[in-house]
Amino acid sequence: MSEPNLFHKLAAETIGTFWLVLGGVGSAVFAAQAHSADLYPLGIGYLGVSLAFGLTVLTGVYAFGAISGGHFNPAVTLGAALAHRVQWKILPAYWIVQVIGGLLAGLVIYYIAAGKPGFVATGHLGANGYGENSPGGYPLSAVILAEIVLTALFLLVILGSTDERAPKGFAGVSIGFALALTNLVAIPISNASINPARSTAVAFFNGNGAPAQLWVFWLAPLIGGAIAGIAYPFLFGRAEDAAHQPVPTSSG
Amino acid sequence: MSEPNLFHKLAAETIGTFWLVLGGVGSAVFAAQAHSADLYPLGIGYLGVSLAFGLTVLTGVYAFGAISGGHFNPAVTLGAALAHRVQWKILPAYWIVQVIGGLLAGLVIYYIAAGKPGFVATGHLGANGYGENSPGGYPLSAVILAEIVLTALFLLVILGSTDERAPKGFAGVSIGFALALTNLVAIPISNASINPARSTAVAFFNGNGAPAQLWVFWLAPLIGGAIAGIAYPFLFGRAEDAAHQPVPTSSG
Amino acid sequence: MSEPNLFHKLAAETIGTFWLVLGGVGSAVFAAQAHSADLYPLGIGYLGVSLAFGLTVLTGVYAFGAISGGHFNPAVTLGAALAHRVQWKILPAYWIVQVIGGLLAGLVIYYIAAGKPGFVATGHLGANGYGENSPGGYPLSAVILAEIVLTALFLLVILGSTDERAPKGFAGVSIGFALALTNLVAIPISNASINPARSTAVAFFNGNGAPAQLWVFWLAPLIGGAIAGIAYPFLFGRAEDAAHQPVPTSSG
Amino acid sequence: MSEPNLFHKLAAETIGTFWLVLGGVGSAVFAAQAHSADLYPLGIGYLGVSLAFGLTVLTGVYAFGAISGGHFNPAVTLGAALAHRVQWKILPAYWIVQVIGGLLAGLVIYYIAAGKPGFVATGHLGANGYGENSPGGYPLSAVILAEIVLTALFLLVILGSTDERAPKGFAGVSIGFALALTNLVAIPISNASINPARSTAVAFFNGNGAPAQLWVFWLAPLIGGAIAGIAYPFLFGRAEDAAHQPVPTSSG
Repeated sequence: MSEPNLFHKLAAETIGTFWLVLGGVGSAVFAAQAHSADLYPLGIGYLGVSLAFGLTVLTGVYAFGAISGGHFNPAVTLGAALAHRVQWKILPAYWIVQVIGGLLAGLVIYYIAAGKPGFVATGHLGANGYGENSPGGYPLSAVILAEIVLTALFLLVILGSTDERAPKGFAGVSIGFALALTNLVAIPISNASINPARSTAVAFFNGNGAPAQLWVFWLAPLIGGAIAGIAYPFLFGRAEDAAHQPVPTSSG
Repeated sequence: MSEPNLFHKLAAETIGTFWLVLGGVGSAVFAAQAHSADLYPLGIGYLGVSLAFGLTVLTGVYAFGAISGGHFNPAVTLGAALAHRVQWKILPAYWIVQVIGGLLAGLVIYYIAAGKPGFVATGHLGANGYGENSPGGYPLSAVILAEIVLTALFLLVILGSTDERAPKGFAGVSIGFALALTNLVAIPISNASINPARSTAVAFFNGNGAPAQLWVFWLAPLIGGAIAGIAYPFLFGRAEDAAHQPVPTSSG
Repeated sequence: MSEPNLFHKLAAETIGTFWLVLGGVGSAVFAAQAHSADLYPLGIGYLGVSLAFGLTVLTGVYAFGAISGGHFNPAVTLGAALAHRVQWKILPAYWIVQVIGGLLAGLVIYYIAAGKPGFVATGHLGANGYGENSPGGYPLSAVILAEIVLTALFLLVILGSTDERAPKGFAGVSIGFALALTNLVAIPISNASINPARSTAVAFFNGNGAPAQLWVFWLAPLIGGAIAGIAYPFLFGRAEDAAHQPVPTSSG
Repeated sequence: MSEPNLFHKLAAETIGTFWLVLGGVGSAVFAAQAHSADLYPLGIGYLGVSLAFGLTVLTGVYAFGAISGGHFNPAVTLGAALAHRVQWKILPAYWIVQVIGGLLAGLVIYYIAAGKPGFVATGHLGANGYGENSPGGYPLSAVILAEIVLTALFLLVILGSTDERAPKGFAGVSIGFALALTNLVAIPISNASINPARSTAVAFFNGNGAPAQLWVFWLAPLIGGAIAGIAYPFLFGRAEDAAHQPVPTSSG
């Protein structure tokens, strides 16, 4: 069997992040508030959007995780590198293609949404935000705390579920549903980033203050991911050889 | 153990597609907008319909995937053939029985729905559509883009999850939830086809413009499936022997 | 390891059916229409009830399936016997304890529900029905058709997912979600029986016409189960030795 | 590979219970009743909260279960000890860190919630209760019955799914979804404890009668857990050596 090379890995991260943004943000933009002609509520709400985000990663890990590790998220790549699960040298390329894949999905969402008569993109493309741009009006301090803590826990679940002590094959289920869970908590707070590539993907299409607040959704998830990556081996121990033989983060 | 023969394979595709349409479209027709006697909203909405579609395939792959590969969808069979996962010679028979299975389910849905006092079939049998027949009023261009992109991603998930590098046994979970995800995004856009057999199954029972628009829901999903089938080996590499020994697409 | 004996098997079927009714019907009675003090809709609706039914079986198969086969449903036991998956001699005892387990759960639901100030049991304990007792007003013919077809498909999924050709271990996921799917379709039609023990469990506590209609929810699911049990080997072939060595229906 | 030591086990129980409370109670506090600026209902309701609780445990078992057994709940530890699955000597330390982990999550929820303009903590931090503090006004007797029965069934599912006869690896799926199911039934009754650490975590931040009612949510779940722990070997038999070689309760 041909081993995945760097091109295959970057293709997997690009397409996986495209899928994450198309499915997660796309469901939010198109379906969260949908209703019937007589206004019966049919929309998927925050529960549907949370599950959509989760299912992008669940399916992405099973489909592409064996190729690239299934990160689709700069904070995951950072945490995995700090935990000695991937080599540092892959980080820059992974970050770049994650952002590119996300932006391509943002473009597709923008194009489809713009087709609907009367659609106004500004402020309605699923951007993350705090203060006035938080769905529930949560301030910067609450948003930073939520994003750091939830991303850290998300990374601990990733690192634990892909630990060689964990049951084989279930990492995709565990990681996908962990992302869904972070969204169930954080959508009202910050619209749930947890992932700088997801935030970048629609910030500029959304406008309305999102670009100016984008730094928060790089800083906080990366801090959370770094905390988890550093803490994991200390908290739970690790296989002696993990530092010498990088292993796939995900379902490999 | 007796090997599945062509009759068994076609039975599995017929029944699996019947199940897909009965569960997915049936839940939409009967349950999406249900309410209590005092109008409390009890309906499953687009989230419930999306999960229903996903669960038909999740369960169909585990129940029938080892027999037939678990396609239940002409676009999947096309993509699988282009990716060298199934032999071309099975495609015509698979397409025929997928359409037959879907139509039988459409007939059952029609019969049950017609029993409800006051039910009007025209325009209420879960057909796909664009423009006036799009749930959210999305135009043809947006519908074609959404159907192509989502079907292509759906096929990449299928091909990746059934790749020999992926964890064994999880393909049903991954593929089923990937279909749910496409529906979470696309129901407001086109009522979510992704599958020409699903669209054909109810277009004629639904009437109301659906038959005249049916060509879109053959063309766009097949284009999406074809793109993915051709692109997969290029993007992710493949086992050297895949071209010579067709393997089941699904959970086998 | 001690082999499960008949007492263990009957305990598993009793408790599993208790769990099915407590979780499925209980969620319907207590949570389907719940709202906050200011009438914000918090209830789980038909989607939540459908998932609850599915999760009772998913978890019951993993917890108790290795002991008893995880039927929890007279129609499943009948279909499994007809498909040569279990011995006929266990059927009477299984049916009896399935009904007893269900009735015990009905009693617990009744007791808890009766504690709520103003609660009226009559007509509000999750019974199945047709005509005036159908949630959506569906007539007897539609209810019978839906129950037969959905139970037959449910059994085909069970028999397929526990076929030795299917991936090992996933039967609980597949069977549980298949039951959820039947409920997503059938709750508005008949309040979704699929299972005579589930219908019997609350018919008498519910009153209001349910006892007089109970025969439908024995007849139709048993017909559906029988059709599937007889058809399965014809449709999909089977292992040569299946007729001689009964194997567990579920996740064993 | 380094064996998990007591520090690793206690870290896993602390973080797992933190995750359970942050995800479960956090989703209830922040997202259950969320709506858009124009009052369109977007909140996740009791279904979303139930799934959130379930997903905390599903993901926690896969991530941390191989380290500590994945209890995150004093009633689970008690039942597991009574069923000879863990050694009695670990119980006091597990209980202590479960409570600490839960309280830390309560503190984070309190801090984030307090940031929202106009938020009043008293009575809105997801506490459990009966009578006036029951979401649906259920009295003490109904609450005690529901908590005992549901916790006992939850423990039977845990003990069955981690029995050596059950399919390997699926315990996390089964246990997580079993907790979701208990919440689907019991949120309207008692706001669903099932877990004394979860109740303790927010009782004091919530105030409003919750501290005075907290004894119920220790007593009833512990009784339920104890019943199941004692009954399991009697009901279902057990491996001869189980009493001598404690095995992990969860997915190990």
